[in-house]
Amino acid sequence: MALTLDPFFNPRSVAVVGASADPKKLGHAVVYNIVTHGFPGDVYPINPKAEEIMGRRCYPSVLAVPGEVDLAVIVVPSQAVLAVVEECGQKGVGGIIVITAGFREVGPQGLAMERDLLATVRRYGMRMIGPNCLGIIDTFVPLQASFALGMPKQGGIAFMSQSGALCTSILDMALADGIGFSRFVSLGNKADLNEIDFLQAWGDDPNSRVITAYLEGIADGARFIEVARQVSKRKPVIAVKSGTTQAGSRAVSSHTGTLAGSERAYEAAFLQAGVLRATSVQDLFDMAVAFARQPLPATDAVAVVTNAGGPGIMATDALERAGLRLATLTAETQAKLREGLPPAASVLNPVDVLGDAMADRYALAINAVADDPNVGAILVILTPQIMTQIQETAAAVTAVAKRSGKPILTAFMGKQTIAAGERILVEHGLPNYPVPERAVNALAAMVRQKRWQERPVPKIERFEVDREAVAEVLRRVRADGRLTIGDAEARTIQAAYGIPFPKSVLAKTPDQAAAAAEEIGFPVVLKIASPDILHKTDIGGVKLNLQTADQVRDAFDLMVYRAQRYQPTAEIWGCLVQQQVRGGKEVLLGMNRDPQFGPLLVFGLGGIYVEALKDVTFRVAPIDREQAREMLSEIRSYSLLKGVRGEPPSDLDAIVDVMLRLSQLVTDFPEIVELDINPLMVFERGKGALGIDMRLVLK
Amino acid sequence: MALTLDPFFNPRSVAVVGASADPKKLGHAVVYNIVTHGFPGDVYPINPKAEEIMGRRCYPSVLAVPGEVDLAVIVVPSQAVLAVVEECGQKGVGGIIVITAGFREVGPQGLAMERDLLATVRRYGMRMIGPNCLGIIDTFVPLQASFALGMPKQGGIAFMSQSGALCTSILDMALADGIGFSRFVSLGNKADLNEIDFLQAWGDDPNSRVITAYLEGIADGARFIEVARQVSKRKPVIAVKSGTTQAGSRAVSSHTGTLAGSERAYEAAFLQAGVLRATSVQDLFDMAVAFARQPLPATDAVAVVTNAGGPGIMATDALERAGLRLATLTAETQAKLREGLPPAASVLNPVDVLGDAMADRYALAINAVADDPNVGAILVILTPQIMTQIQETAAAVTAVAKRSGKPILTAFMGKQTIAAGERILVEHGLPNYPVPERAVNALAAMVRQKRWQERPVPKIERFEVDREAVAEVLRRVRADGRLTIGDAEARTIQAAYGIPFPKSVLAKTPDQAAAAAEEIGFPVVLKIASPDILHKTDIGGVKLNLQTADQVRDAFDLMVYRAQRYQPTAEIWGCLVQQQVRGGKEVLLGMNRDPQFGPLLVFGLGGIYVEALKDVTFRVAPIDREQAREMLSEIRSYSLLKGVRGEPPSDLDAIVDVMLRLSQLVTDFPEIVELDINPLMVFERGKGALGIDMRLVLK
Repeated sequence: MALTLDPFFNPRSVAVVGASADPKKLGHAVVYNIVTHGFPGDVYPINPKAEEIMGRRCYPSVLAVPGEVDLAVIVVPSQAVLAVVEECGQKGVGGIIVITAGFREVGPQGLAMERDLLATVRRYGMRMIGPNCLGIIDTFVPLQASFALGMPKQGGIAFMSQSGALCTSILDMALADGIGFSRFVSLGNKADLNEIDFLQAWGDDPNSRVITAYLEGIADGARFIEVARQVSKRKPVIAVKSGTTQAGSRAVSSHTGTLAGSERAYEAAFLQAGVLRATSVQDLFDMAVAFARQPLPATDAVAVVTNAGGPGIMATDALERAGLRLATLTAETQAKLREGLPPAASVLNPVDVLGDAMADRYALAINAVADDPNVGAILVILTPQIMTQIQETAAAVTAVAKRSGKPILTAFMGKQTIAAGERILVEHGLPNYPVPERAVNALAAMVRQKRWQERPVPKIERFEVDREAVAEVLRRVRADGRLTIGDAEARTIQAAYGIPFPKSVLAKTPDQAAAAAEEIGFPVVLKIASPDILHKTDIGGVKLNLQTADQVRDAFDLMVYRAQRYQPTAEIWGCLVQQQVRGGKEVLLGMNRDPQFGPLLVFGLGGIYVEALKDVTFRVAPIDREQAREMLSEIRSYSLLKGVRGEPPSDLDAIVDVMLRLSQLVTDFPEIVELDINPLMVFERGKGALGIDMRLVLK
Repeated sequence: MALTLDPFFNPRSVAVVGASADPKKLGHAVVYNIVTHGFPGDVYPINPKAEEIMGRRCYPSVLAVPGEVDLAVIVVPSQAVLAVVEECGQKGVGGIIVITAGFREVGPQGLAMERDLLATVRRYGMRMIGPNCLGIIDTFVPLQASFALGMPKQGGIAFMSQSGALCTSILDMALADGIGFSRFVSLGNKADLNEIDFLQAWGDDPNSRVITAYLEGIADGARFIEVARQVSKRKPVIAVKSGTTQAGSRAVSSHTGTLAGSERAYEAAFLQAGVLRATSVQDLFDMAVAFARQPLPATDAVAVVTNAGGPGIMATDALERAGLRLATLTAETQAKLREGLPPAASVLNPVDVLGDAMADRYALAINAVADDPNVGAILVILTPQIMTQIQETAAAVTAVAKRSGKPILTAFMGKQTIAAGERILVEHGLPNYPVPERAVNALAAMVRQKRWQERPVPKIERFEVDREAVAEVLRRVRADGRLTIGDAEARTIQAAYGIPFPKSVLAKTPDQAAAAAEEIGFPVVLKIASPDILHKTDIGGVKLNLQTADQVRDAFDLMVYRAQRYQPTAEIWGCLVQQQVRGGKEVLLGMNRDPQFGPLLVFGLGGIYVEALKDVTFRVAPIDREQAREMLSEIRSYSLLKGVRGEPPSDLDAIVDVMLRLSQLVTDFPEIVELDINPLMVFERGKGALGIDMRLVLK
């Protein structure tokens, strides 16, 4: 069922409960904004002590309003809010905005009040924004139902903010810079409606071309990813996410747990959900204004047209840093430029029209690169020289932008002198940036968005596995009162999910171990088998390269002796005799269940380097084959796996296969909170991989 | 001898050669600017066809001027410049500014003209700025001797730019934002005076509190480092360096060569010279305005005062990313805040004075944190709420700034509403930033500068070495017509400079090799000995772990056979029998001679990881012990060397010792253009390090 936010963004009537005639009161500001900024429906100020406010008749309560009330904006003191909401419910109000503060944010008592509030809202089937918010704005209704000053221009940017105070700064900036909004929502405490609801609703709003958000936390990580993944395929979603959530009090004992952390989880989740992450509010709007009015680029090849060499070089540097390319202009384009520009001009990209360029030279160059099939996007740089025709050049740029279908961003650098030209650009939907680096940053976001939209929807494969076998192991572990598993149990799980492992036998005595070693073939590895000892190497619980039966017997006794000394209470099952794996490269696969987003997969370089170098990458499970391949290629040491210096390439397909099986395992069993396969030993291409050691922690 | 730039920045008289009465001509703009912006000395327009320009009497040539001419600004066509400069020389002019373009930048003919120009300038002992520049400005003289529009405010920022066009953008922006300059120079083609000259001169200019530059290349890398290192101890030097120089056509064959590249050299050089690197012009001025009027922070502990939670969190995130700390407020400060602020306010850092804070609450909080001994710097964030007293708050901030001696930066977020407050801040030297992230970035630069100023001057150690032995080896290599050395030669060099290496013997026959192995002790390593084979492992030219005399004989024959097949023309001296090194960690030390900055040392993780992970760091030699230690700690895998997971720490002192000896070696012998010690095998602390393999390329 589609969520309808019509009471908020398409109301026929609005009541302001707590309306005031005193211009210093918030209750006045809200009525003032609704009336002054042209709300076309009925406005009902609610105040038992007033006759009328701003020429509108006052009513003592919502219940006294003669007509229907779609939306109620509540600004009464916090103690009075619940009663007002109850009345709204009785009246049949559809949506309420609780501006009043003093709830969850002030402590336990406030939280209790907020819960009562929400219960009442739910009971009557209403929806609520807030409490503790600034209100909302819809420039198309138009409805300015907040206590912030002013009304922004109509435009394609929808914005929501978890910080009300930030809203006022952004509105103030937007008013001065002519940034246009479709909708503007202060989320407040998010007791009912949250960022996911607006994301979903705005995905279908034709007036909103780009959805932007300032977020401090996300209500439901899994649903956020699901909704954002769909919406971001249709329009860009950009977010500033600030603050790091505490990972909770659960002690982290695995490699993966140490490497992960909420910041990495957000990064992975945003990546997989197609959400573009901005580093600051400035960055957010640098991107948003480009998306709001310019088309997406077909490719990442950028043409730069400039009247100054220096800024052209800066743009080139920035393009390279951002992973974009300077377009290679066709011979035809170069010929056009050579013909139309003076000899000293550069007809290669960046196209330098020289400091004395008038608007005609700019027009010629921009038209030429816009018509070049090798060009995906255009950046026009202008420095104000004495002869520069700033407004005429701005007009020339807008003319090309209208016809070309390619995104054009500008960096008219300066302030006073370029102001009139900048105004022309902005009026025609051409975002102008004070320095080329910021324009390039926006272009890079557009290219990412384009690629995201073109990318196929992940197809999650399901392997045939023995799910029941794993369930059985986990039941037994729980029945034992354990949270971790032993090696033999790990083998059972690996076998059930098709994750290969070395030949291995659990031996209870030195002689059993020696016999097993003869069976497996020398050399072998001996490992202490205990569910209680996690870091075996630390206590000498792993012995490599045992060549004879005698060596195996000696190692067995020594290992058990040491384990008992190191951890007298540990349950010791004996030792595991394993096939000694030769050659291959060590990688790490793992999962840490993030409190926000769920199973966070990790892949990285294994061995002693994993913690030192943190050469790892993350995704939220389940992942598909393409995402698994992407993870492989994202680590810095990828070239080691591909084979360097004549070394043979590793079996990348085998790693991908284990990744996908791991993804399925942790998706199937939510009770697994941490899991490491470390190392996964990867052999030459075609020779597979072996999960040498698997550790697992249950909830 | 100190360079005097008095003719430029302290002239008593200025001639403008090519002065024009036509307002469209550059020759008019220059006269207009000099006269209008209040130059107090004599102004002589030179134009044979005019009587007077802007009320000043014209002269037909410089030679016709009755008085002395300190400075001549030349705007005649390029063909006429040389004759004018000749006349200036005859007249005894001290400095000339050649605005005229059409020299080096247009090709070989222009370059020849520029050389003639420089020869003439030198012949007369004059100094020259340009050609192909915009001119210069000194706001204190005052002298506006450029063709750019307007005159910036007086201020502490000295700026030079290799891009003339960029100057106009920056002036335009500075005029609107009230950014004050001391001196402003367009460098042009830098035929005579270059960035180093101005850096040196401005180091002594009391009006210039911070030196800023836009650079595309640096004239003399070694001198730049030397001069910048001294000047930056006295005042901040900030540069945008754009573009990457081609490393030249010399083929790069070593690891170090591959890892280095001009970008890394600039990074290392700027770091060692104390030059703060800005990523854009915006970034440059974000830093410069802070340095120009605010004191340096005593520590990196920052207090944040805000009326909005969200931006407070953003500031905190930014501080962490920038490597700064949130100050821990003293109990006394917290008590003061608790007493003066409402209960819902946060008295921990960030101090949240709440959305309804008036100026008094801000004043209380800022005073409290300013008086806290734990606080090194203060960031004040303001979002414009309905009740916010923006101007009064600005006044409160400036009052604290005046008395506190600690740097205060502000982020009054918004535009129209906060404009009046921002004006008060800027007038009192308090830089305001539109988002907290940019303020934090400036603070981080201030902390870096503070640490740089406190850092002792590097003390280069000299080891007792046998310099002559190395000179002898290099002579012999040259005499052979070779550019690379063999293993035996490498050992001689290592021995001469005290760089330890494994026991090793050059064997010419299999039997000699076997005998040597017996002598050294098994196991041994065998390596092909040839000056022509660089990557020995690629052709099976290295064999490890040989256990018996027979194995050594077999390996010898096979190796020589393969080497001959692989590279039939290679000169093969035999095989090197080496002590097999056990244990230890592989690191890489090396040097690549950068065309700009000279010997660029590299240190990093060795083995197969060096190229894959690029976990390396760079410095320009010579370095001192502290810099060597810094290099160690800069690589990501430093923790591996310090010892992780119960592993013993490596012998860091031994690495430092080899680094310093290598630094001395490459400083002593400029003819060495590349050098790798790879691997340097490092053992447990106290057990030293061995340079297993050293390769070297001569010029």
